[in-house]
Amino acid sequence: MSAIGRFYSRAGLVEREMERLVPRAGRPAEVYGLLWEFLDLGGKRFRPLLALASSRACGGRDSDALPAAAAIELFHNFTLIHDDIEDDSQMRRGKPCLHIRHGVPLALNAGDGLFMLVWRAALSIKSPRSAAVQKTMLDAFTAVLEGQARELGWHRRHAWDLTAEDYLSMVGGKTAALVQASCSVGALCASAKPAQVKALASYGHSMGVAFQIQDDVLNLCGEEEKYKKEIGGDIREGKRTLMVLHALPRLDSADAKRLRSILDSQSAGQADIDWAIGRMRSTGSIDYASKYARSLIGKSLSQISKLPKSEAREELEAVARFITERES
Amino acid sequence: MSAIGRFYSRAGLVEREMERLVPRAGRPAEVYGLLWEFLDLGGKRFRPLLALASSRACGGRDSDALPAAAAIELFHNFTLIHDDIEDDSQMRRGKPCLHIRHGVPLALNAGDGLFMLVWRAALSIKSPRSAAVQKTMLDAFTAVLEGQARELGWHRRHAWDLTAEDYLSMVGGKTAALVQASCSVGALCASAKPAQVKALASYGHSMGVAFQIQDDVLNLCGEEEKYKKEIGGDIREGKRTLMVLHALPRLDSADAKRLRSILDSQSAGQADIDWAIGRMRSTGSIDYASKYARSLIGKSLSQISKLPKSEAREELEAVARFITERES
Repeated sequence: MSAIGRFYSRAGLVEREMERLVPRAGRPAEVYGLLWEFLDLGGKRFRPLLALASSRACGGRDSDALPAAAAIELFHNFTLIHDDIEDDSQMRRGKPCLHIRHGVPLALNAGDGLFMLVWRAALSIKSPRSAAVQKTMLDAFTAVLEGQARELGWHRRHAWDLTAEDYLSMVGGKTAALVQASCSVGALCASAKPAQVKALASYGHSMGVAFQIQDDVLNLCGEEEKYKKEIGGDIREGKRTLMVLHALPRLDSADAKRLRSILDSQSAGQADIDWAIGRMRSTGSIDYASKYARSLIGKSLSQISKLPKSEAREELEAVARFITERES
Repeated sequence: MSAIGRFYSRAGLVEREMERLVPRAGRPAEVYGLLWEFLDLGGKRFRPLLALASSRACGGRDSDALPAAAAIELFHNFTLIHDDIEDDSQMRRGKPCLHIRHGVPLALNAGDGLFMLVWRAALSIKSPRSAAVQKTMLDAFTAVLEGQARELGWHRRHAWDLTAEDYLSMVGGKTAALVQASCSVGALCASAKPAQVKALASYGHSMGVAFQIQDDVLNLCGEEEKYKKEIGGDIREGKRTLMVLHALPRLDSADAKRLRSILDSQSAGQADIDWAIGRMRSTGSIDYASKYARSLIGKSLSQISKLPKSEAREELEAVARFITERES
């Protein structure tokens, strides 16, 4: 089996742990029924699998990291339920979103219920380092929320006084903090040395930022059949991506004004989207973002080169490389 | 000073602890600025003050229970922020609700941020019983969410297959669980004996249910100037109160049908509201609910009669008695 195949082969372990943590027949069904409706939509379980591989890369077992890994996956799903409400998204994994099916009140409340289960899972972690694990998780969860708030705030006040650093700091919270925590929590659960925990945290952080940048790039240049989301959807939603913030100071003032107004309109047509993508290509911004993501993956790989050679390290290397090679 | 005066005289302690737990200058302002906008609206701080009095009634100090007490008050505020979104409320304590001022996305996210701070506060509790305190809090928080889900579900599916027991079980979660936890956590923080923790938990539970029933009664029969909310608002919102569920089987089928349809319309006019209140009066349902609340307060008082006589016990007795005497 390939290293990536080995990495994903443990998804069943995560699923079983989630079954343990979220009572499938729990009452009221307005909480637990909705949650399983959402959790059953699946997902790659990327973050918990990172935790398991990180644990093994530090000499631990899968089982050492499993409760924390599943708690992180539950938290990730909690953010998806609430983000879908915040963005008024319609579809998630090919099905209508939870708030579309059951209304905002029940979906919001079920999300809160999932967060209670995350806390419960965290409380149940039996590890000599359980205090550090809980603190790492809580710090990451807070950073995710803060990153999300920053981005929501940009949209709310039509902010354009933003730099690439603002983007990287926002993504460092919204996306990378949880990937980072998956890796460092995995290491902590294996009672790894501080230097190993730190190396895996850095690996996860760089990879998390690269993941988001690559996702933004695919949103503009992917092939719709493989990417499975609307190409250019980020432009319609007015997202301040690294590419947008790189392009704006490089466009003449008329083009910059038009790009800002397309993004702020929240209703761009296909011609506007095509024009915007063309301008970001001409300023070299898409190329810049792709290269930036690849350089972050290089940093990720160098961090874990300090870990002892192992099957798990190979898996971590393979999933990192795949971030910038993927087409979906 | 009266016993009730003494009880509320400690509100400043709670405020200062909340200042410690929620960073006023925290960034981004989209989280912490919004939270203080909400927390600064005030409130009686009833739940945390119950925790302090419960601690003192068991021989502890205010300071023993203060971090847990403030965490419970923060959780209560978290539920208010999310409930206002779920109910699409317009006003809270005389000001437009957070989601009205800042939009649903930022208000929802700020609520989530407050819950992170609740968890952080709970993690920081230094008590020989901190594990029991955390578990008690988490169980109560879960019960609150589940109670809220039940009530939302009733509205969503226009449920009328409900009994007084369904109402009491819903309120036992949505309202009473947190009042109960305030008391038992206060006792736990004072390292009280199990029988004392149990007595205070029962005291809090009965009082919490009585509080909600009395609130429902005042909503129909209060004086608008004192009650400060719209009289009959619960009828417009279609709430399944103890009075509604008591009245329905006692009305002839035409009147029962009309009452259900007024409640389901969510847009009852003043004539409909007056008619509904008149019917619930004629079936004796309002009287029944008032008496039921008073009997619960009697149960509350008998529970704490087992505690040693103290100033704090007097305060707990006085606030319980006030529940069914208040007009607002």
